[in-house]
Amino acid sequence: MDIREIAEDFARLCAEGRVQEAVRTYWSPDIATFEPVPGEWAETRGIEQAMAKMTWWRENHEIHEIDVEGPWVNGNQFTLYWEIEMTPKDGETEDLEEIVLYTVEDGKIVEERYFY
Amino acid sequence: MDIREIAEDFARLCAEGRVQEAVRTYWSPDIATFEPVPGEWAETRGIEQAMAKMTWWRENHEIHEIDVEGPWVNGNQFTLYWEIEMTPKDGETEDLEEIVLYTVEDGKIVEERYFY
Repeated sequence: MDIREIAEDFARLCAEGRVQEAVRTYWSPDIATFEPVPGEWAETRGIEQAMAKMTWWRENHEIHEIDVEGPWVNGNQFTLYWEIEMTPKDGETEDLEEIVLYTVEDGKIVEERYFY
Repeated sequence: MDIREIAEDFARLCAEGRVQEAVRTYWSPDIATFEPVPGEWAETRGIEQAMAKMTWWRENHEIHEIDVEGPWVNGNQFTLYWEIEMTPKDGETEDLEEIVLYTVEDGKIVEERYFY
């Protein structure tokens, strides 16, 4: 699969609500993730830590609706637009809008960089 | 100005149709640009070449409407969503959708990476 096929399949799975399947299929064991804000999950290294971040996020936010747009591709990177209507534990319902930049090596996502 | 202020001001100028002013204000003399497709303008190095690409683009496309969304920020980078309704010379009117990833150093944009 070339980068555009990987990006489109990953985007399709996420848009269908199959995020767990998407990341099990496409995350590299070495995936690193980078959030723009400080804190425990600002940077993760390796698939176990990335999975732990995802689990933490799901346990602390109730998701009402997810919209995924894209992909847009350049070289070995692609971007998706995410809009997530969710309620944080003990918080107010809000719309989270973000762009995620994915870097692909050998058919797997090795980096996710979050922009918001 | 921090990265978010630069990103917001740049996005505002572009959204108001003041792209020339935005790039004169924020492009570094060393700006590099990277398109995802091969050809004469696939990569440019330095502000003269970036300006030449912009001039070529404007001379070869009639722009009807521009929508700019964002910015979304991470570290020293930000992203914008561009939707441009335009007609290429000798072509059909189309909607161009792209994400642009901007890298900022010392208050100036040193890299633009186009995703589509």
